[in-house]
Amino acid sequence: MSPMTATQTPPAATQRPLSMTEAIESRRSIRQFVQEPLNQDDLREILRLASLAPSAWNAQTWRFAVVQTPELKEQLREAAYGQPQVTSAPAVIVIYSDMEDTLQTAEDTAHPGLGDAGRTQQRATFDGAFGAQDTAQRGQWGLTQANIAFGFLMLAARGLGYDTVPMLGFDQGKVRQILDLPEHVQFAGILPLGKRAEEGYPHHRHSVERVAKFY
Amino acid sequence: MSPMTATQTPPAATQRPLSMTEAIESRRSIRQFVQEPLNQDDLREILRLASLAPSAWNAQTWRFAVVQTPELKEQLREAAYGQPQVTSAPAVIVIYSDMEDTLQTAEDTAHPGLGDAGRTQQRATFDGAFGAQDTAQRGQWGLTQANIAFGFLMLAARGLGYDTVPMLGFDQGKVRQILDLPEHVQFAGILPLGKRAEEGYPHHRHSVERVAKFY
Repeated sequence: MSPMTATQTPPAATQRPLSMTEAIESRRSIRQFVQEPLNQDDLREILRLASLAPSAWNAQTWRFAVVQTPELKEQLREAAYGQPQVTSAPAVIVIYSDMEDTLQTAEDTAHPGLGDAGRTQQRATFDGAFGAQDTAQRGQWGLTQANIAFGFLMLAARGLGYDTVPMLGFDQGKVRQILDLPEHVQFAGILPLGKRAEEGYPHHRHSVERVAKFY
Repeated sequence: MSPMTATQTPPAATQRPLSMTEAIESRRSIRQFVQEPLNQDDLREILRLASLAPSAWNAQTWRFAVVQTPELKEQLREAAYGQPQVTSAPAVIVIYSDMEDTLQTAEDTAHPGLGDAGRTQQRATFDGAFGAQDTAQRGQWGLTQANIAFGFLMLAARGLGYDTVPMLGFDQGKVRQILDLPEHVQFAGILPLGKRAEEGYPHHRHSVERVAKFY
């Protein structure tokens, strides 16, 4: 698909929030973005909506590194083997999980309605489930939760008229270094974010019958 | 939160598809469902929308086992340590990844616009990336992709007025046996699905500033 010309109206320029169905259907991987800074209120709203994803025991293992400076975007692009969508996007969100931070602050994830007993129980639950595991093992669990939020993040963005392209191909060690993140964090992906300046490819998916069994 | 009485209008009984923002905000874990069979067209539409999730190389590693018979729901409930939401829901979707099936049929995931060359390239990409890995190793990769679709599935359901509760606590071996699934599949979770008959708990989440760093 060729980039749209200046005379076309970008599909992202909607004046109302998209319905869930519209958002899912119109989400495509977009690699060429409109060259303008991101509305910072929209950005925070997208992150807030992503963080409403569910997680077991409300662990909220996901973390977001939001990169908007040209210098760091350029470094991320190098770490992503030169893929140009990283610098085309006004913002790049690195989605990762941090299970060690999650464990250290487990009490804060207890529902306030449960009071002090809830906080104590939450600590016991996390220590019991993960205390005997090594960092890599529990990190893997944290990553599965972060991937659910990764899905929410892409849809929250589309719902507000933004576009993304999920990327898994990058040098994790370099990204860790660029963002000054601890060794134990595990990456879900990198997500360039902005408004589409190309149409992207239409979906090609297995049929429902191919991926679902009915019992 | 107590179940709603018969005089209250269930929040799920909306007449229009929810916006993305409404769907994300109104999604809560629901464990008591209205006792009526699921509309089968809605069910297929929810699965179709979930399968529009993105995946690296369009691998589509996710698979859905949809259980609606009382006998099998009862068996799943036992495998989930007796948790009652499994039999309260009219349908229970088991989300898992099947990387071996994914690898065997890699060609079918190549975009038709790329023709035979695309199919050949897709085969080479998958063989190169996963051919030398063992089943568990590549299964783990498949699972990360399936978790993204898991997030899409919950939001697709909510967007059409349905409710869910993601469950990770179950005996995987028993579920594998009940559904007659191969040893190598990896489970993302179990998702009871229906219309809410209780309010559920309001969200309790870290602030955006707590989970996001801005660069």
